Amino acid sequence: MEFEKKEIVKKSEDFSRWYTDVILKAELADYAPVKGCMVIRPYGYALWEGVQKHLGQAIKDSGVPNAYFPLFIPHSFLEKEKEHVKGFSPELAVVTHGGGKKLAEPLVVRPTSETIMYPMFAKWIQSWRDLPFKINQWCNIVRWELRTYLFLRTLEFLWQEGHTAHATHEEAEEEALARLEMYRRFVEGVLAIPTIVGKKSGAEKFAGAEDTYTVEALMPDGKALQCGTSHNLGQNFAKAFEIQFQDKNGQLQHVYQTSWGLSTRIIGALIMVHGDDNGLVLPPEIAPIQVVVVPIGEKSQMSNLKFQNHISNLKTDLETAGIRVKIDDREERSVGWKFNEWELKGVPVRIEIGSQEIKNKSVTVVRRDTGEKSQIPNPKSQTEIERILDDIQQNLYQKAQKSLKENTHEVGDYAEFKKIMSGPRGFIKAFWCGSAECEAKIKEETKATIRAIPLKPEKTLGKCVFCGQPASSRVFFAQAY
Amino acid sequence: MEFEKKEIVKKSEDFSRWYTDVILKAELADYAPVKGCMVIRPYGYALWEGVQKHLGQAIKDSGVPNAYFPLFIPHSFLEKEKEHVKGFSPELAVVTHGGGKKLAEPLVVRPTSETIMYPMFAKWIQSWRDLPFKINQWCNIVRWELRTYLFLRTLEFLWQEGHTAHATHEEAEEEALARLEMYRRFVEGVLAIPTIVGKKSGAEKFAGAEDTYTVEALMPDGKALQCGTSHNLGQNFAKAFEIQFQDKNGQLQHVYQTSWGLSTRIIGALIMVHGDDNGLVLPPEIAPIQVVVVPIGEKSQMSNLKFQNHISNLKTDLETAGIRVKIDDREERSVGWKFNEWELKGVPVRIEIGSQEIKNKSVTVVRRDTGEKSQIPNPKSQTEIERILDDIQQNLYQKAQKSLKENTHEVGDYAEFKKIMSGPRGFIKAFWCGSAECEAKIKEETKATIRAIPLKPEKTLGKCVFCGQPASSRVFFAQAY
Repeated sequence: MEFEKKEIVKKSEDFSRWYTDVILKAELADYAPVKGCMVIRPYGYALWEGVQKHLGQAIKDSGVPNAYFPLFIPHSFLEKEKEHVKGFSPELAVVTHGGGKKLAEPLVVRPTSETIMYPMFAKWIQSWRDLPFKINQWCNIVRWELRTYLFLRTLEFLWQEGHTAHATHEEAEEEALARLEMYRRFVEGVLAIPTIVGKKSGAEKFAGAEDTYTVEALMPDGKALQCGTSHNLGQNFAKAFEIQFQDKNGQLQHVYQTSWGLSTRIIGALIMVHGDDNGLVLPPEIAPIQVVVVPIGEKSQMSNLKFQNHISNLKTDLETAGIRVKIDDREERSVGWKFNEWELKGVPVRIEIGSQEIKNKSVTVVRRDTGEKSQIPNPKSQTEIERILDDIQQNLYQKAQKSLKENTHEVGDYAEFKKIMSGPRGFIKAFWCGSAECEAKIKEETKATIRAIPLKPEKTLGKCVFCGQPASSRVFFAQAY
Repeated sequence: MEFEKKEIVKKSEDFSRWYTDVILKAELADYAPVKGCMVIRPYGYALWEGVQKHLGQAIKDSGVPNAYFPLFIPHSFLEKEKEHVKGFSPELAVVTHGGGKKLAEPLVVRPTSETIMYPMFAKWIQSWRDLPFKINQWCNIVRWELRTYLFLRTLEFLWQEGHTAHATHEEAEEEALARLEMYRRFVEGVLAIPTIVGKKSGAEKFAGAEDTYTVEALMPDGKALQCGTSHNLGQNFAKAFEIQFQDKNGQLQHVYQTSWGLSTRIIGALIMVHGDDNGLVLPPEIAPIQVVVVPIGEKSQMSNLKFQNHISNLKTDLETAGIRVKIDDREERSVGWKFNEWELKGVPVRIEIGSQEIKNKSVTVVRRDTGEKSQIPNPKSQTEIERILDDIQQNLYQKAQKSLKENTHEVGDYAEFKKIMSGPRGFIKAFWCGSAECEAKIKEETKATIRAIPLKPEKTLGKCVFCGQPASSRVFFAQAY
């Protein structure tokens, strides 16, 4: 009965419904009874814990400790950096009453933490000896938004935000680019999602930043999704919040800053990029369960000691190799139900063990990504399954990379640009003159924005795809989530 | 210069100032520029990460996964359980505006998550097969409070909250008591803080609970601090939120629930219980740095290859044994400054290495808890330091236990009760008739409340310390944080 409930629409048929179906039925998340909000259920939260483990380790290994700053920001703090408050004002949740009384000054629920962190930076940073100063925070963020799109657009989301202060502009720029590279490596290496990296245009950059860098990925419906972002804040906030240090010559100087973040949005990308008609497909590196073992056969046989030893030995072997294994020995579910359930949940490898396998001293292994089935002799199961998991990780990346290549169009002609953006979409690589006007017109007519300006400039530049004037760069356009 | 700044008042001289001094100067936390709020700095947050690691593992190992529910709760949800809303109303922060508009219904910032979680429970729980249902959340909590006391009383704090649903009252009671035991074990085993466990009186229980259980510890100023709490919610919330399941006979039944939590308050207890005149004293199990190595000698000698090998070999040896080690080779600080710094920060073991140690193929080891200094020959350093860390962990627990015993008074006479509560304070174990009136009068006259009613009843009962009527139990009174 519950089996029928788990059916999902085909990915090719209705992508948006498929996405929601997968999330709800694989129990990654659910709609909350508060408008705009979602509940992250255990299986979805386990993915976020995977992000925290991998990315958290990379952040710590790079010498950035975690800390925690207040949820509430006095509105006057937000106003100190003019661009910043302008950018975030339309998205604020405001606390006006506390402890039964009206507040003298309303408090904003953090939409990002620059303005609550930096007064502390001003206090803690005194001398060049205190620099570079680096801190990271894992927390919840609120940006007012009532049209929920699970993981991608919710009123509240979870993220990590890193903040650093440096003695020179050059160091801040280096830091911002190093974080961009950290995100790229994580998204490509752990999540198996190929990316395009680059700088944002003036229209798309973070409110208050000098420059914003981005890691972008392409979704199967041809829309781009920002996976992580890193800002060189220059001295904008340092001047607004008086963050000064005494340099080696005894002179007071404003620091140069960066901030960088990656959020639970990334889970949306993970689902979209790899999933198929049967549900989730998880890259082994991030999969909460990498191998599920389903015993097959009569109940009497399954309670057989030899049978049980076979399974528990296999589990021990795999766990010794650091593989995350689950034995699904639920009696109330049929084998077919279990196969469907674990396919829906995207577990990379399924192992079947029945009387045939016991007799042959082997296991039957089924890959989630290709559906391929193979027999592996017992003594080899550990190394062979490690190999298969590696292979799945690579295969998923390669498939996604092939799709990214096929859907990145080099376009010189605006008519073609418009046609692609109304049709298959994807990334368009095109010359741009650098004017905000052309950018705005293109957006208006095609819904496409500049997603990334490549960090390495082209050797030869053509003409702007919109206005025909000499281009300043060749950039990636796309419609975006 | 910075050395002078680190001086702290004596613990015996001004306990409250000592506490704040230690927190600020050991850089555990700082006052935030928002009234009632604090910033948890990296060294303090590392302690919380230690809590998350140990307690988080215990929670996961007991089969409870993590999830994430919304920060905001519609006010009408809170109202569904009458006792609950009454208890929390005075402490609420209320969001009245979002996205530039006034909200139709104000949203409360979660003061605890029962009322935002349980509508989801009602949706997810359908059958006896779905029970027991267990979920845990690590998150931020807001309870309006403007008089900040670092870690102990802040407007916003961090915690873990577990929530379970069961088919029977008995199972829920078992769960509530199992979580109490989990907290006791964590607080005693990891934080080396001896505790008193028991049930809360009606006046002190959680708003909406049937019974509240508590783990209490005694602070050096004679006041009690609640370390963790576990509630048997009975069917109170199940009825308010219509959480029903079909039992094995096909009948609809309301579930029985528990909730249990432990917060960043616990870090306050950790600081108070073990700290001394030189600052923090951290139990090795929770210490972010367990061993600090301070090289001693001339700069020329310290850059000597043999010297450096000696230190890096030691570090490798200790890390292989799973010990958290830091080498403090900062050139801009003197040896004396470093000693003071690491004492202030409560690092359990300091290792000094100078030319003498190199010559003797040994290390000098100094214990933070006793100040004891010893020489250990190199080949034995790994096992010997493991032994010393174990010994410090035990010693801290025993010292605190001795203090708990000495400051727990068995009192039969109310005059004596009053005298103790105006004098040394501590726990008073006394008979109580069970009436809320006596409890309230005692509180009014002595500021002492019932902290815990022991789980095992006394064999013979005396007379109520206040009214002289026959007692229903013998309970622990104390003034509380």
